[in-house]
Amino acid sequence: MKNEKITSREVDFGKWYTDVVRAAHLASYSSVKGCIIFEPNGYALWEKMQSVMDGMFRETGHSNVYMPLLIPESLLQKESELIEGFAPEVAWVTQGGEKKLEERLCIRPTSETLFSDYYHNVVKSYRDLPLKYNQWCSVMRWEKETRPFLRSREFLWQEGHTVHETREEAEEETKQMLHVYETFFKDYLAIPVITGKKTEKEKFAGAEYSLTVEALMYNGIALQSGTSHFFGDKFARAYDIRFKDRNNQDAYCYQTSWGTTTRMIGALIMVHSDDNGLVLPPKIAPVPVTIIPIGESDEVMEQVDRICHLLKEAKIKVSVDDSKKSPGFKFAEAEVKGIPLRIEVGERDLKNKKITMVRRDTREKISYDLDCDIVAEVTSLLDTIQSDMYQRALKRREDLTFEAHNLEEVKEIMDKQPGFIHAMWCGDPACEAKMKEIRGTKSRCILENAKAIDDHCVVCGKKAKHHVVWGIQY
Amino acid sequence: MKNEKITSREVDFGKWYTDVVRAAHLASYSSVKGCIIFEPNGYALWEKMQSVMDGMFRETGHSNVYMPLLIPESLLQKESELIEGFAPEVAWVTQGGEKKLEERLCIRPTSETLFSDYYHNVVKSYRDLPLKYNQWCSVMRWEKETRPFLRSREFLWQEGHTVHETREEAEEETKQMLHVYETFFKDYLAIPVITGKKTEKEKFAGAEYSLTVEALMYNGIALQSGTSHFFGDKFARAYDIRFKDRNNQDAYCYQTSWGTTTRMIGALIMVHSDDNGLVLPPKIAPVPVTIIPIGESDEVMEQVDRICHLLKEAKIKVSVDDSKKSPGFKFAEAEVKGIPLRIEVGERDLKNKKITMVRRDTREKISYDLDCDIVAEVTSLLDTIQSDMYQRALKRREDLTFEAHNLEEVKEIMDKQPGFIHAMWCGDPACEAKMKEIRGTKSRCILENAKAIDDHCVVCGKKAKHHVVWGIQY
Repeated sequence: MKNEKITSREVDFGKWYTDVVRAAHLASYSSVKGCIIFEPNGYALWEKMQSVMDGMFRETGHSNVYMPLLIPESLLQKESELIEGFAPEVAWVTQGGEKKLEERLCIRPTSETLFSDYYHNVVKSYRDLPLKYNQWCSVMRWEKETRPFLRSREFLWQEGHTVHETREEAEEETKQMLHVYETFFKDYLAIPVITGKKTEKEKFAGAEYSLTVEALMYNGIALQSGTSHFFGDKFARAYDIRFKDRNNQDAYCYQTSWGTTTRMIGALIMVHSDDNGLVLPPKIAPVPVTIIPIGESDEVMEQVDRICHLLKEAKIKVSVDDSKKSPGFKFAEAEVKGIPLRIEVGERDLKNKKITMVRRDTREKISYDLDCDIVAEVTSLLDTIQSDMYQRALKRREDLTFEAHNLEEVKEIMDKQPGFIHAMWCGDPACEAKMKEIRGTKSRCILENAKAIDDHCVVCGKKAKHHVVWGIQY
Repeated sequence: MKNEKITSREVDFGKWYTDVVRAAHLASYSSVKGCIIFEPNGYALWEKMQSVMDGMFRETGHSNVYMPLLIPESLLQKESELIEGFAPEVAWVTQGGEKKLEERLCIRPTSETLFSDYYHNVVKSYRDLPLKYNQWCSVMRWEKETRPFLRSREFLWQEGHTVHETREEAEEETKQMLHVYETFFKDYLAIPVITGKKTEKEKFAGAEYSLTVEALMYNGIALQSGTSHFFGDKFARAYDIRFKDRNNQDAYCYQTSWGTTTRMIGALIMVHSDDNGLVLPPKIAPVPVTIIPIGESDEVMEQVDRICHLLKEAKIKVSVDDSKKSPGFKFAEAEVKGIPLRIEVGERDLKNKKITMVRRDTREKISYDLDCDIVAEVTSLLDTIQSDMYQRALKRREDLTFEAHNLEEVKEIMDKQPGFIHAMWCGDPACEAKMKEIRGTKSRCILENAKAIDDHCVVCGKKAKHHVVWGIQY
């Protein structure tokens, strides 16, 4: 039996995706074109992600700050690549109150300019370094086509911005934050990712290089899921961020930035969810357990209270659905919302001194003795669900990961069933452009220190320089 | 000895205020006119406030959501009082990417319009009610004169928006949230507040009535610190939010909204701080205790580690300043940042089996035996500081609270030493306007169920209707 409100994933993946978003009450469309409303279930997921990542940022020595929403045009223009990259897609404020502004201001598409302007004012000596800041905020990019969580004009994100004394330290930071993202995806979202370096064409405007975590969705489409940029001293030169070094000489500092967005909610849906709605990994579910009483007898409610109390004492977040709806309706609702584990407490079970637990990921029903160690069993089952979800996602990705040695093979794979394609590349942007002609196939990243799988470029046949993972992207 | 970077509060209150903001690294000016940068210490304070208030909102049944940043002009215009109230002070986006927009969009000054538009779409039946939502976000109002935290073009806030089946339930909510604010100010910020109803002139544009919490700063100037609005069915009629009631009849719903802002940081400074910098109440300090080693001997560092470990185990947040700076420099830094309690561990004290604790609020040094129950002593001292700070603020407010029976008395008070003035009012806006001529004195709120202190209006001498608290406001 499947949820009637949700189109089957196999029938129409795009429609399935938006059906899940709507049915799980994650987001709603607004009267503002290209902007969504984060409903309580969607926003709670983002808050959970924030809370975990924020802890990881603090552990690696970062502090939160908040920069202005608006950027004066003249400030944006100081770094030429950045303005070229973002100018076509920013929203401009031209009027404040009843007055036309002398200089127009854009709504931040990203905040390198504001952080650099701030660092210019506060960094005086090597003793002031490093400064390792992060901010949680919304940004705006005037996209033409939008899709909830994956691409919208306004989205929520975190952007880390750091400034360092040496190139080495800044490069170390760039790598470290990529690793934080990789860990978060693996350990919390249960999503395996590939990490590597973006090509020149795909890197962030203004970066010396960009590192990326890339995930593969259930349908074989790739999703850029987080990036970490090394700027060298480019912004320092553009914004004049100089300090007295250890020899009392003027020196430019080195910077990084790194970000992840609410697009991660889209990844969660497209990697794990099914025709019955959302499926959440226990470690990222705002409430991993729900208890559903079947019937309202004192005996049932007593057991519900007992189990609820035990779980709360063990710091396991739990909800109880004691509304007047039918049990079947409640089961479907818990499923569509993706609650990892549901505990059913009914009179029939209680007569046999049993309760039932139902895994959301496999929909498997498991019977437990009423007097079992409920906290231990729930903890163990949640761990199993978390690890099984990761293993299933990994297997799916491996099933959809291919090797190609020439353009014909690339075409064949992408026409049949897209996925990640490993193939060698000579480094010429013209070959990258040729790949793009095949259903928009783009380089996802260059694998560093990976073994060559061929000696020639998959496109032109000349000597290969890089082992690249390619894919069709969202 | 006072902090050299800070102008004395008695010499120039305005300059003292901005000196404290800068010296405590709470905020910095930006290149964006009228917008500030929240530096780590300032943002951490806001995060602490968020975390406490968010818990209070959840306990009273609210969920967080996120609405778009931009509001189409046509949507804003549906409620006529709201647009009249806000149109002169919003920022307008007129260009998106490289295109001029067909309809201009304003950056939200507040989100009643967006919530109402959403409720119009989702509220169908009395079974859908109530919906009790809150959002944490930034808003923008194109102010001409700005001052860090107190008034700036962009500020951070929370805005609650709820929709109810009955007038009574919505009014109950309006009152409840005022009470939540009052409790938060009293129990966490250690700031006494007066609560009451705004006059017609001072109420929120579009509200049936507004309730407010009003605080008095050290210099006797009043600060509107949080408001809770009852809308009746005005927005429901403007945005067509109808539902099938229990008799299956179409009915308009009732709404509220309520908000507090980063202005609370300004209140904290202006109520509690002194010539040595910030003074934070322990319950709102991000880190209430700091340990400062004097010297670096093994014995000192062992004790520092021991005390730090004990406090952490007891879930008391603590920092250790083991930098290379001199002890005197570290003491001053801990003071300027407002850390409520500093523990000094030095060799001389250790020889006598002692340690020293220093209260930030009174700067009192207290000697403790090294083998005392450190967790109990710290907990008790933090409680004392919290409660003493509230009592001192209350006494200051009482010292600056006056009664007036005619305009002459009002003038005399406001010329000599401003504060809260209790005085009767006939209800005529013309009398309110006359009061304003006296150094901008405005009604803060009407006290409900308060005893009359006179039978005639303080301005016109006619029959009095309301007991009003008046003040000069920020």
